[in-house]
Amino acid sequence: MQIANSLQQIQPSYIREILHAASQPDVISLAGGLPATEHFPLDLLAPSIQALSKQKGLFQYGSTAGYTPLLNFLGNQYQLPASHRGLICTGSQQGLDLIARAFINPGDHIVLEAPSYLGALQVFGLVQAKISCVQQNRYGPDLQQLAVLFADQNVKLFYAVPDFHNPTGVCWSLQTRQKVAQLCQQYNVAFIEDVPYRELRFNGQNFTLVSSFCPEHSLVLRSFSKIATPGMRLGLASGKKEWIDALIKIKQAADLHSSLPMQAVLLSLLQHKDFSKHIRRTRKLYKSRYQCLRETLLTQLPSEYRINPVDGGMFLWLQMPNCDVNTIAQSALANGVAVVPSSVFYHKQPALKAALRLNFTHVNEEKLSQAVNRLSEILIA
Amino acid sequence: MQIANSLQQIQPSYIREILHAASQPDVISLAGGLPATEHFPLDLLAPSIQALSKQKGLFQYGSTAGYTPLLNFLGNQYQLPASHRGLICTGSQQGLDLIARAFINPGDHIVLEAPSYLGALQVFGLVQAKISCVQQNRYGPDLQQLAVLFADQNVKLFYAVPDFHNPTGVCWSLQTRQKVAQLCQQYNVAFIEDVPYRELRFNGQNFTLVSSFCPEHSLVLRSFSKIATPGMRLGLASGKKEWIDALIKIKQAADLHSSLPMQAVLLSLLQHKDFSKHIRRTRKLYKSRYQCLRETLLTQLPSEYRINPVDGGMFLWLQMPNCDVNTIAQSALANGVAVVPSSVFYHKQPALKAALRLNFTHVNEEKLSQAVNRLSEILIA
Repeated sequence: MQIANSLQQIQPSYIREILHAASQPDVISLAGGLPATEHFPLDLLAPSIQALSKQKGLFQYGSTAGYTPLLNFLGNQYQLPASHRGLICTGSQQGLDLIARAFINPGDHIVLEAPSYLGALQVFGLVQAKISCVQQNRYGPDLQQLAVLFADQNVKLFYAVPDFHNPTGVCWSLQTRQKVAQLCQQYNVAFIEDVPYRELRFNGQNFTLVSSFCPEHSLVLRSFSKIATPGMRLGLASGKKEWIDALIKIKQAADLHSSLPMQAVLLSLLQHKDFSKHIRRTRKLYKSRYQCLRETLLTQLPSEYRINPVDGGMFLWLQMPNCDVNTIAQSALANGVAVVPSSVFYHKQPALKAALRLNFTHVNEEKLSQAVNRLSEILIA
Repeated sequence: MQIANSLQQIQPSYIREILHAASQPDVISLAGGLPATEHFPLDLLAPSIQALSKQKGLFQYGSTAGYTPLLNFLGNQYQLPASHRGLICTGSQQGLDLIARAFINPGDHIVLEAPSYLGALQVFGLVQAKISCVQQNRYGPDLQQLAVLFADQNVKLFYAVPDFHNPTGVCWSLQTRQKVAQLCQQYNVAFIEDVPYRELRFNGQNFTLVSSFCPEHSLVLRSFSKIATPGMRLGLASGKKEWIDALIKIKQAADLHSSLPMQAVLLSLLQHKDFSKHIRRTRKLYKSRYQCLRETLLTQLPSEYRINPVDGGMFLWLQMPNCDVNTIAQSALANGVAVVPSSVFYHKQPALKAALRLNFTHVNEEKLSQAVNRLSEILIA
């Protein structure tokens, strides 16, 4: 059987592909977007996990939209308007995939940031969207360029990660948020706001969600992988009812519903009296790891290597003098440190800026320092 | 945002849509394909569920293909050839969706049985396959008609449920299996063998899998919803490596991987010393419920209502004199019994034969008898 045309042009995820190599005991991986395993809140999860084995109803088929008590809790937590609803997804990645499948015809025009989240490049590639990219500056997307794209083309949606962007760590300013929302309303572009890292802010205060400025023009994707655990595979898509209903129709065909026992366990975690303490401890841990990674890099690398500071999230974006980033990443792996070259985050290579994405949440400070040593040997060689 | 063209022609699942109405306390539902909740093996699952809260690694991101110990166990259990591999899916429904997305271009020709599993109609509709249907007789698909379809058209795949078909309960004969495999090889058609009910045989011995006669031309979809529990959402796709690799590329974009804690719990269940005893008890329970439903129907309905006997699975197919099956199903629901009209299982309505699908696994014998009373009131009225 010949594979479908839509799949032929899709590259497998570099990150997923190197996970195996990166998990070898002698390799330190800064490649994945992995939270700190040793910090998982299993003590808070334990009571609800134990209780599962008495709740047969949680092991039966459930409704496609999700476990009702969890949906109710989240609707209240995120103050969804009455005209909106939520959908529990098998990770927020599924939410993104459902959006692409529900709304994009081959050739439909969409806009992403450059660089972009790799998983978004994959799903929109699979539905054969026509992808334009808007350059990012330190406050978010270049607004002039975005306005021109929206004005010149019939753009269906704009997908972005406004809080601690993957891969760059950029957090959009309040002004940028307001202007993007205004442009989306003006040009009738749906805004897909992906906020997996929003709860991981370790400096300052969160800005308002972009979608709060244009609630009828947006869908929000939330992940529980960073605040609970990723292995459970749970996320939330929310937005106006008619749009979520379209996602539910696809989800019926995609997997019927997401794991019901996991949804019940997630609900108990989110309701646990010590959950907010767990999040505060997570932020504190990630802040110190971030500071360690950044300071070690600044100490060891010459000044032509640039790192913009971040206020949260999971990644540092190490900008480099022009070079072949793929070769650098391969050499680094051979030298015992896994990183992700910027090439995988660009839809079109001409836009490519040489950089490496470095994760600071997964390994401890000692290993972060060792990783920088190994990386420096490659970069300075 | 306008929904995609591919979605516009898809009907939401009747069965999923009426689950809410069917779950009202005064309604007895024979509509869903639900296993018996009270019979779930939670006593066998309990030790591995309890152990989860000590295994942080199971809550981290996992590999897309699945939890390696589970894949190894299943590869051995199902004796996959060395050239084959497995992929853990978020239910076997996801396996089917991945196959459609990985291999079907809009307009590609595929063959299904008539009537067909509704979830297959949905996924192949979403990828805009050109669907032809082969009529079913009591031994499986009409082989002459199938040969003509394969000879006349460039058919890419043939999807079927050879063991206790959903909705009809038909189990293919050995001869039919051999002939279908031979035809698939002769015409280079991929055979997609969906076997969610295979372990639920309560009379006689299983026949060889169709795919065993054409292993390089087939993909097998297995479900753990019927032998473990559905809420966990786990299934297995297996076949030759290059085909499964294509599915894995799509799954990376679809949900990264399936719930890892659930995969570990499933493995423990399958390895439990009392698991085979649990399956034997399940078969016994379903056999007595089947006999109760069938006998009550035969007693209460006139002879123009026909029920072919089944040797396993979850469904009885009640064939009726010509009538409007949708109206019958609606009247039955209003009279407190949920059933599924045959109309939802046909790709093209002209092929429609009047029938109702009745599930016999979910409710107990007392309720089955009550359900037949309520249904008879509608049918004989």
